[in-house]
Amino acid sequence: MLKVGIIGAGRIGRVHGESITKYVENAEIKAIADPYLNEEQKEWIKEKGIPYAYTDYKNILEDSEINAVLICSSTDTHSKISIEAIRAHKHVFCEKPIDHNISKIQEVINELKRNPEIKYQVGFNRRYDHNFKAIKQAVAEGKIGKPHILKITSRDPEPPSIDYVKISGGIFLDMTIHDFDMIRYLIGSEVVEVYAAGNVIVDNAIGEAGDIDTAIITLKLENGAMAVIDNSRKSAYGYDQRAEVFGSKGQVSISNDSGSSAVISTENGVTGEKPMFFFLERYMQAYSEEIREFIDAIINDKDTPVNADDGLKPVLIGLAAKKSLEENRPVKISEIKL
Amino acid sequence: MLKVGIIGAGRIGRVHGESITKYVENAEIKAIADPYLNEEQKEWIKEKGIPYAYTDYKNILEDSEINAVLICSSTDTHSKISIEAIRAHKHVFCEKPIDHNISKIQEVINELKRNPEIKYQVGFNRRYDHNFKAIKQAVAEGKIGKPHILKITSRDPEPPSIDYVKISGGIFLDMTIHDFDMIRYLIGSEVVEVYAAGNVIVDNAIGEAGDIDTAIITLKLENGAMAVIDNSRKSAYGYDQRAEVFGSKGQVSISNDSGSSAVISTENGVTGEKPMFFFLERYMQAYSEEIREFIDAIINDKDTPVNADDGLKPVLIGLAAKKSLEENRPVKISEIKL
Amino acid sequence: MLKVGIIGAGRIGRVHGESITKYVENAEIKAIADPYLNEEQKEWIKEKGIPYAYTDYKNILEDSEINAVLICSSTDTHSKISIEAIRAHKHVFCEKPIDHNISKIQEVINELKRNPEIKYQVGFNRRYDHNFKAIKQAVAEGKIGKPHILKITSRDPEPPSIDYVKISGGIFLDMTIHDFDMIRYLIGSEVVEVYAAGNVIVDNAIGEAGDIDTAIITLKLENGAMAVIDNSRKSAYGYDQRAEVFGSKGQVSISNDSGSSAVISTENGVTGEKPMFFFLERYMQAYSEEIREFIDAIINDKDTPVNADDGLKPVLIGLAAKKSLEENRPVKISEIKL
Amino acid sequence: MLKVGIIGAGRIGRVHGESITKYVENAEIKAIADPYLNEEQKEWIKEKGIPYAYTDYKNILEDSEINAVLICSSTDTHSKISIEAIRAHKHVFCEKPIDHNISKIQEVINELKRNPEIKYQVGFNRRYDHNFKAIKQAVAEGKIGKPHILKITSRDPEPPSIDYVKISGGIFLDMTIHDFDMIRYLIGSEVVEVYAAGNVIVDNAIGEAGDIDTAIITLKLENGAMAVIDNSRKSAYGYDQRAEVFGSKGQVSISNDSGSSAVISTENGVTGEKPMFFFLERYMQAYSEEIREFIDAIINDKDTPVNADDGLKPVLIGLAAKKSLEENRPVKISEIKL
Repeated sequence: MLKVGIIGAGRIGRVHGESITKYVENAEIKAIADPYLNEEQKEWIKEKGIPYAYTDYKNILEDSEINAVLICSSTDTHSKISIEAIRAHKHVFCEKPIDHNISKIQEVINELKRNPEIKYQVGFNRRYDHNFKAIKQAVAEGKIGKPHILKITSRDPEPPSIDYVKISGGIFLDMTIHDFDMIRYLIGSEVVEVYAAGNVIVDNAIGEAGDIDTAIITLKLENGAMAVIDNSRKSAYGYDQRAEVFGSKGQVSISNDSGSSAVISTENGVTGEKPMFFFLERYMQAYSEEIREFIDAIINDKDTPVNADDGLKPVLIGLAAKKSLEENRPVKISEIKL
Repeated sequence: MLKVGIIGAGRIGRVHGESITKYVENAEIKAIADPYLNEEQKEWIKEKGIPYAYTDYKNILEDSEINAVLICSSTDTHSKISIEAIRAHKHVFCEKPIDHNISKIQEVINELKRNPEIKYQVGFNRRYDHNFKAIKQAVAEGKIGKPHILKITSRDPEPPSIDYVKISGGIFLDMTIHDFDMIRYLIGSEVVEVYAAGNVIVDNAIGEAGDIDTAIITLKLENGAMAVIDNSRKSAYGYDQRAEVFGSKGQVSISNDSGSSAVISTENGVTGEKPMFFFLERYMQAYSEEIREFIDAIINDKDTPVNADDGLKPVLIGLAAKKSLEENRPVKISEIKL
Repeated sequence: MLKVGIIGAGRIGRVHGESITKYVENAEIKAIADPYLNEEQKEWIKEKGIPYAYTDYKNILEDSEINAVLICSSTDTHSKISIEAIRAHKHVFCEKPIDHNISKIQEVINELKRNPEIKYQVGFNRRYDHNFKAIKQAVAEGKIGKPHILKITSRDPEPPSIDYVKISGGIFLDMTIHDFDMIRYLIGSEVVEVYAAGNVIVDNAIGEAGDIDTAIITLKLENGAMAVIDNSRKSAYGYDQRAEVFGSKGQVSISNDSGSSAVISTENGVTGEKPMFFFLERYMQAYSEEIREFIDAIINDKDTPVNADDGLKPVLIGLAAKKSLEENRPVKISEIKL
Repeated sequence: MLKVGIIGAGRIGRVHGESITKYVENAEIKAIADPYLNEEQKEWIKEKGIPYAYTDYKNILEDSEINAVLICSSTDTHSKISIEAIRAHKHVFCEKPIDHNISKIQEVINELKRNPEIKYQVGFNRRYDHNFKAIKQAVAEGKIGKPHILKITSRDPEPPSIDYVKISGGIFLDMTIHDFDMIRYLIGSEVVEVYAAGNVIVDNAIGEAGDIDTAIITLKLENGAMAVIDNSRKSAYGYDQRAEVFGSKGQVSISNDSGSSAVISTENGVTGEKPMFFFLERYMQAYSEEIREFIDAIINDKDTPVNADDGLKPVLIGLAAKKSLEENRPVKISEIKL
């Protein structure tokens, strides 16, 4: 039985904890660490029967029985703890993004080169979603021919708190980063240039915090295809997560999931349910799947499906998008230097 | 240029008149007859440039230049005028039903046997509808294999006036008759037995007039398939016209048409347009098509696509359904005698 | 922690076992009993950490620490074990149907009257399905007004084995019984009369085993509404589970769930995924929910949501449907005597 | 009865001719002019009963009985004939675009200023389409709040001939011009900046002719909203014409129209019809509507719904898009000078 340690007992740390408890048969949580455990978290730890709870994550790194750690702490600690964990010979699952600073991501990559036996996976959960996987499969099987245009709509139901906006790294590194990952995943080609148009329309406070809330981002890919992402921080009807890939033989598209298929027809129209509202509700199955794959990669010595390089690339695109927005011009990814 | 006479200047007579004027290139209306022409009708006749308007339809039958007549008068005159028109050597398009009385329909059929050169078509327009034709084609091409179950939903947006209910012949001969025709058309097999469950739920006045307003009718077909129709005289969301045929290899189904594909997503749900409300709006293209086919059958000496026998059969089924409802038992079509 | 015993380690017994392990926090499985445990089952029991495995279910009934039993054995044992379990003061979750014989169901009901403290729930899992619940809710909230017509389409992807057909009690007691329960659940009114038309079209062997494979069943309800169910034992495109309720103010309908929302558009058409193929896949969430509700009813001393009377009624309707098919006439539920 | 002259008997000239004949009650075609009438065209003129057919359009301009002309000749003649027709005191319906050269469009506008009694309408038919009108209406009624993001997908089923590509003015002035018009129409705000990414992926011959076949165009609007258009010259599944407007309160979207609503479910999936393939089939109703509105504006002395300025603006956007593509940078509309 693989012993796992979770670093960070916040929302996402507990989501992964639930997955291991319920859906992963050959792993168990030995310890969890968080400097500020509240009553709710303590209760949860007790309920799950997790033997050890620490305030200092180093206790986990020092436990030789623990084979793998999940880094679910705040973003600014991801790269540092990643390096320490690799050095402590733990396999690492690290929440996205590895860092906002690409030289720190590079340090993680370098450390991994020195420890080639260590499995490292980044938490781009959307790759495990049933809808996005179905697009990927259709593209990979050649059902739509050579991809020409990829479109992603990604709109949050509610903006995050302004406090979070300030430390988020900006919309491109916080929110669009998932969409950048999806482009690479769905098409299997690298982004070479990005043009970002953005605006503050949803909430002026976001603008005052130095960020934008609405964006349209055009991307040129190595293989000649083009992609476009549209983002909003506030979608009145819920979490809007759609994509389509158009190619020489046709198109594959996905629409939103909702709570039921019920449609009510009255004199006011024909009304179905809204998309699911919350990202945890929408992607719960994907969160379980990614942890299962991580554990599987360790146990069966496979490559992790989302490695450190997959963690770096979307950050590069995000930084290029940021520069594009600031300078109002298309920016090549190669312009972004360490 | 084929000369046509229209008998009856009511709503449906003018619908057919519009079709001939706009969509049928090798026919023109020479005369129209109606005992009670109002100002609106006179205006319409003038606008369309129809040369003759009579109060007595016999003027049309006596005009040797007129080759074809459209019988759009009240139902109780259909069979009588049909016979007179056949005898006057006019091709006949007769609105449904030919009669509520099957021996009168039989007389029309007998008259047609004596005049085999006469083309006779019954106004089952739904056979020309794009959706129902698409079902028919899928079934005929074997896409769903051998048909097992046929389901038709047919619900009016509003009940007719109680005055009309009283002379309508009852829901089965007035409304369900289209659905009976659709079963024969879509499956290409004859109905052998019918069981009708019905109720008065929409409007008690309909019950007082001796009719029902809600029905579920089960039909057994010669080829072993079964069919079910559900009817209502009042559908709050508009004219509901759906069907599906389920077979050994799969299913083909059609849904309602609406004015546009617009879908509005808000915090209240995801809302599309209601089905079209009115039968003329919904089936306008089918009305044009049936007249075009009728004229084409005359000019190119083809069989009409809906002949007098096709006019008789749904009336037999309707009378069996009526008997089934009265006696609360399945009734064989063969029980209905002339 | 509530201790549960499972009687029957077949497919459904293990499904409920998984639910308790994963989704029910205040219950645990103490023992499982099955006269013929195979290697796969033994492996599963070990994996789940179930302390006791018996061949004789009486060991479970005799264990005073066990508060509740799940009866997942073959149908012919349901009523007998139910009575024994009630007498042993266990709360009972019994798979549907309680029995094919209504006097045996009546004995269970009588035993429950003598032991009013015992919770008894029947496994009509569909009541917990997200789609059917959404219909129920829309109806209950008056969104469609007074119900007039209820339609259920319920088609299996594949017929069961002929061996199973022979002991199944016939399609009405085995398959349609769920639809009968849904009618009662969705509309909240009792069935008073049923007319069943049925046929053998899918597989002659089913006919030879004395059953039918295709059916259309019309039902009249106490409140004046009517319902129609269509069943097939073989749907080429997967498990077809749809319903609609039409009422004075409109309609609510549900469509099938599929694995993803992906739609592929090519020169051959616009193609989405088939419905889920297998009932366990389709209703897994509902299976978990019903067990959670059963445990909740015990712990918090609530009424179970599907009681023994809810287990009896659909069997009465099923027997009436059977009689209707045999005699080809509508049969009142009141004709079915103990 | 308003007398109309049609200049150009090509495909679109005859489409408008059909509309006048069938759907416009208070106008008739007196003459048609085309330097190269073929047999098919002559036949059509005869069938429609058009009294005069000329090779020289000046015969139409000189006919004092003719009140209005439809300019359906090749694009390079639109502005010249527009000016001559205005000077001849004819109301003008001019096919899009008025010209590829904005100073020539300006001359038309100047001539109209000298003849304020003349009605001038540009053939942006899509404004009359039932789907686009439904979006416009939802936005105008405030159903989606303040618009934030507008997305248009516009993909042709087949590229035009290379000969046509060479004289087309490029994809932005030939094809995207409709989408530029739609942005202005749907949102009611002017475009201030455009960034165009484009590529040759469909057919190298298009690239050799100096054009592109695939494009993603981002537009910033005066009111702060942003828009994105994606174009392809070849969509394997037919003519793809979709749009959505996302705003503070929600979204309105339209999908493609197809020939029927039939959906076939088999073991291979759930397949509906492709979108209509051909633009004339798709927009036939809109073509009729625009001519009807033009005639109505003349007869009832109303403003035409798409005036010369509406003809100029999309050309300005198109030229800015062209410059953006050439220089790979966002281009302000104000950079485009006469």
